[in-house]
Amino acid sequence: MSKLYAGVDLGGTSMIAVIADRRGKILGSSDCATIREVNPSETIAQIAEQILLAAKDASIKPSKIESIGIGAPGAVSPKEGIVVRAPNLGWTDVPLSTLLGNRLKKKVVLGNDVQVAILGEHAFGVAKGLDRVVGIWVGTGIGGGLIINGKLDPGARGAAGEIGHMVLKEDGPVCGCGRTGCVEALASRTSMERDVLAASGKGKKSAVLQIMKERKKTRMTSSVMDRALKAGDPIMMDVLSKAQHYLGLLAGNVVNLLDPEMVVIGGGVAQRLGEDFVGPIRDLARSRFLKPDTEGQIRIEHSILGDYSGALGAVSLARDA
Amino acid sequence: MSKLYAGVDLGGTSMIAVIADRRGKILGSSDCATIREVNPSETIAQIAEQILLAAKDASIKPSKIESIGIGAPGAVSPKEGIVVRAPNLGWTDVPLSTLLGNRLKKKVVLGNDVQVAILGEHAFGVAKGLDRVVGIWVGTGIGGGLIINGKLDPGARGAAGEIGHMVLKEDGPVCGCGRTGCVEALASRTSMERDVLAASGKGKKSAVLQIMKERKKTRMTSSVMDRALKAGDPIMMDVLSKAQHYLGLLAGNVVNLLDPEMVVIGGGVAQRLGEDFVGPIRDLARSRFLKPDTEGQIRIEHSILGDYSGALGAVSLARDA
Repeated sequence: MSKLYAGVDLGGTSMIAVIADRRGKILGSSDCATIREVNPSETIAQIAEQILLAAKDASIKPSKIESIGIGAPGAVSPKEGIVVRAPNLGWTDVPLSTLLGNRLKKKVVLGNDVQVAILGEHAFGVAKGLDRVVGIWVGTGIGGGLIINGKLDPGARGAAGEIGHMVLKEDGPVCGCGRTGCVEALASRTSMERDVLAASGKGKKSAVLQIMKERKKTRMTSSVMDRALKAGDPIMMDVLSKAQHYLGLLAGNVVNLLDPEMVVIGGGVAQRLGEDFVGPIRDLARSRFLKPDTEGQIRIEHSILGDYSGALGAVSLARDA
Repeated sequence: MSKLYAGVDLGGTSMIAVIADRRGKILGSSDCATIREVNPSETIAQIAEQILLAAKDASIKPSKIESIGIGAPGAVSPKEGIVVRAPNLGWTDVPLSTLLGNRLKKKVVLGNDVQVAILGEHAFGVAKGLDRVVGIWVGTGIGGGLIINGKLDPGARGAAGEIGHMVLKEDGPVCGCGRTGCVEALASRTSMERDVLAASGKGKKSAVLQIMKERKKTRMTSSVMDRALKAGDPIMMDVLSKAQHYLGLLAGNVVNLLDPEMVVIGGGVAQRLGEDFVGPIRDLARSRFLKPDTEGQIRIEHSILGDYSGALGAVSLARDA
């Protein structure tokens, strides 16, 4: 039997654990809402429980798990296995690898959630086998990551891939980072929600608020967006189109600088809307390539692993450690 | 005696050839104005002549030259040794390596002029020994190049480093590439000249036109800029400051994406103005770093090899081929 790994995608809202083999075949999984704003040890107990439930789902004994990979949100220090700062979890300097490893008596390898999801698409998804890939992950914020020479490229200080904080419109909106004009402030789901609410307040009416009410959502989630678009809501369509425009400029900039084989667009919105989301981004990006891509060598695609990008990336992290 | 190499920096206006050892010590050099708009073979004969004159200046026999490196402007195909398209020379598909190699009976290694200049700074200059460097070369246009894992990184299609065509202000001026808002259209010497002339026409008066007249220059060269700045010309100061602002945003974007150890600013303006040019660019860039550089790990510096960045880069190209 091939070696088996546990992979965990730890988010501020929910977490998912899988058991998979070295080729990314999922044998079992388990997910739950993340316990927040309590002692980190409670969340860590919860992670351990999900791994054991995933093993049960896979009908394997936990002793068969070779090692564990985990993607955590925020700033992490992979070498030390420490979550340095994760506002979504309320964590500061939590030695996650050690604490989880002690609990399950396994080696635990840690990475940043977005970078791990990009690893997942590179190991088992749309970017499988490529040498040079840029990931743009659109969600609450905009994250990113680089695959260079077939490997995740962490940069000189482990800070590469902060694609959401590249300026595209200096006189644009204020970003969560406190600066203005970052692409995160122009094209993240959070910024789209802001723009929909602002437009709805100006006499026009958006279906978004009604859908959020019906579905008891406090935020404009990807499923709310999808529903509003299917209903032909003009405000949602207009706001989405603007975000796609900026993401297209971003992808074009990245191609002109890095000349990758592929740009992968991932995260909740891309997963939900698929080609409808990525198509207009691709068209605009291609119009900005300095060296024309006459042979179609550069692909701009959405992620294909869906909810499992992160957990499967964590499996590849454990496998390759 | 250490092996000796010839390095040539071929420009549309002038060319320079050096003879140097493998450590970049220059033993002799020669330069001249480039013959243009004639048969490429005349320019190639001129290049061969400069190499022989540089050998004479170094007091060595041409037979002592191990091989030749050359940086040429425009789009080049390094593997085939072909200058694909060089508008500054009026060349299309010129097999420079073969033609020059046959003439001098030596191996000739070709690269793009800007990328070769960045190689020079990496081999022998300010970025010596670093693993991860981004070069931003400001001149008639804005070029760039990447050093990743200690080597020039050409990208998937040989198109990496087209940093001048990253968009920074979509509603900005039209660029030479036909698109709008590229940083080249905001911060190259050509765009600064355009802005000085436009401002001078609006009732205000710039010293730049007077200095160009005195020096019989038809373009606002770096030396004209330097003179106007020393004379305290307010239009020149204002235009320079705006260009530095955009270059600062660009450098910040590049750091957030790539997390390099150093950004080198090169080209005529950086060479002439030095720290006066780079200082404000550095300050703005640092204000945009998402991960604060508290330990001063990221340096933003001007090139230090002056007129010899290109020719010495060509020496390193020949040496490492």
